[in-house]
Amino acid sequence: MVTIRDVAKLAGVSVATVSRVLNNPAIASKEAREQVLKAVKTLGYRPNANAQALATQSSDTIGVVVMDVSDPFFGALVKAVDTVAQQHNKYVLIGNSYHQAEKERHAIEVLIRQRCNALIVHAKALGDAELAQFMEQVPGMVLVNRVVSGYEHRCVSLNNVVGAEMATKLLISQGHQRIGYIGSSHGIADEEERFQGYVAAMQQVRHGEKAPFETWRASGSPDLQGGEAAMVELLGRNLHLSAVFAYNDSMAAGALAVLKENGIRVPHDFSLIGFDDIPIARYTSPKLTTVRYPIISMATLATELALQGAANQLTAGVSHCFMPTLVRRHSVAPWQSVAPVTP
Amino acid sequence: MVTIRDVAKLAGVSVATVSRVLNNPAIASKEAREQVLKAVKTLGYRPNANAQALATQSSDTIGVVVMDVSDPFFGALVKAVDTVAQQHNKYVLIGNSYHQAEKERHAIEVLIRQRCNALIVHAKALGDAELAQFMEQVPGMVLVNRVVSGYEHRCVSLNNVVGAEMATKLLISQGHQRIGYIGSSHGIADEEERFQGYVAAMQQVRHGEKAPFETWRASGSPDLQGGEAAMVELLGRNLHLSAVFAYNDSMAAGALAVLKENGIRVPHDFSLIGFDDIPIARYTSPKLTTVRYPIISMATLATELALQGAANQLTAGVSHCFMPTLVRRHSVAPWQSVAPVTP
Repeated sequence: MVTIRDVAKLAGVSVATVSRVLNNPAIASKEAREQVLKAVKTLGYRPNANAQALATQSSDTIGVVVMDVSDPFFGALVKAVDTVAQQHNKYVLIGNSYHQAEKERHAIEVLIRQRCNALIVHAKALGDAELAQFMEQVPGMVLVNRVVSGYEHRCVSLNNVVGAEMATKLLISQGHQRIGYIGSSHGIADEEERFQGYVAAMQQVRHGEKAPFETWRASGSPDLQGGEAAMVELLGRNLHLSAVFAYNDSMAAGALAVLKENGIRVPHDFSLIGFDDIPIARYTSPKLTTVRYPIISMATLATELALQGAANQLTAGVSHCFMPTLVRRHSVAPWQSVAPVTP
Repeated sequence: MVTIRDVAKLAGVSVATVSRVLNNPAIASKEAREQVLKAVKTLGYRPNANAQALATQSSDTIGVVVMDVSDPFFGALVKAVDTVAQQHNKYVLIGNSYHQAEKERHAIEVLIRQRCNALIVHAKALGDAELAQFMEQVPGMVLVNRVVSGYEHRCVSLNNVVGAEMATKLLISQGHQRIGYIGSSHGIADEEERFQGYVAAMQQVRHGEKAPFETWRASGSPDLQGGEAAMVELLGRNLHLSAVFAYNDSMAAGALAVLKENGIRVPHDFSLIGFDDIPIARYTSPKLTTVRYPIISMATLATELALQGAANQLTAGVSHCFMPTLVRRHSVAPWQSVAPVTP
């Protein structure tokens, strides 16, 4: 690797002069400038980003912590951050946390040590106190999909409970009463909140009974395979359900595949609703009715807030809570009393 | 941000002593060690990764350049790199190139400047000469899905032409003669190679005629939406096709949605084959017949090679060309002369 010393040697000037030409050309002489830039070109020298970051205590990278970049939801989040980063000539450093406290902490620590002064973090395993401590140290750290008290102006969140209530109420409004819930086996707040919204809506319609909602709930990994497994389990329990609300669209698409394989027609025999509105929801057959999670808008806002925070330009007293909206496609239909509900 | 100077002040020792304790504790006195570590804990000091990288001319990050991390194919690539990185206690720094020469070059430059000494690069826009120059400078740089002459031992590739021939020949073996091609509008080598494989297979069956393959080809972005648009275009041309080979599974899934909307049953009326074998291929209805691109194995090998290269442990004379395999699911069936081929 070519160093600044090699450049100085070839240009016949001191290392300090090379540094001056590269970092503050206005105060270098015209002659020195020409010699140094010629040597830089000849040798193919690249300024060391670590040296520059050390000098300025910042870097040209924006850090992002997500659960798993290969999940389409987080892929969309990272892409939105990257779009804003490019507008600011910054690069994105990404850490996968897999929602484990140890990995979340380590990912944030590594990005801070890289001196990313803007950080967009999707953290679900660490406690509020630890996140507050990180945010106190890094003014450009912003949370997505989580609110830590006292840092509301640096948290971009979605009301998951209301979203889940919307989804469940849509099924109820179509006459469904025996509605199952397919949840995520990752024990994160989103799962609890969406289940809570489902239960709240169900209790309004089945207030007379002892609620069997735990029996009507099956879980799996929050992806196609997990939705498949959970739907297989619900069918196996023979609960005479006529509809399911799924934790996310990937799980709903996995459930849809199982229903088809069992000869259960969606939406004629069985209704299905997802959450997130990732692209796949528009390409299943039938297209999925779902709850839209505006992740691109949210990640874009979070990145802008993080850059403002890094520049100490954030003002407290504002909060950033987005509301989900219902996207009506073709996987929900009115309940029919004669429909077969198990294979 | 707490600096090494703050630690030195609180511990009552010199900055050099703090540095010694943190970087080479064996040569520091027991007393100094205790004082410094106590001060580090009290202040919540974090060693600056940029300073460490500057001192060692390396960093604990592995760099990856992909086209677009939100594409499921590249998501799988990045996840495989991340898995190997975690085993080596390294973190992943990612750059999106969008297959534009300027962005590819910039992404590689930024990662080199961050002193990532292991780099996994999916580059399609830059020329061989420029990539060779980068690889000459960075011994830990490895290419995925591309071969640069003279650097075969640092290139992990797939034979796209053979994969496309396999797919097309499967359709031919089922009696299809009028087979369309849905391609990517990104003018990258993969697209050319897959079209070339399609043409090679088609010429064996239709050798008597002037080949109409350009007419039977439609393009779009290599995703669900692009496949949808290309299929709409092929149907609109009224070519009496009975099958389509698609550039990738996302495009095939988009095409499948269009065929269904037009009342064309797959595979009864129309056969469809994709490329890559991403998870979605197992969840369409019918499940997609496709060509498997072993991206996880390839990205894992590339990361191991990059780490070996960074440690100057690579030996020349080996090449790493993977072969695609056919995955037979349910979207291909024998040609039926009475089947309707246009809506």
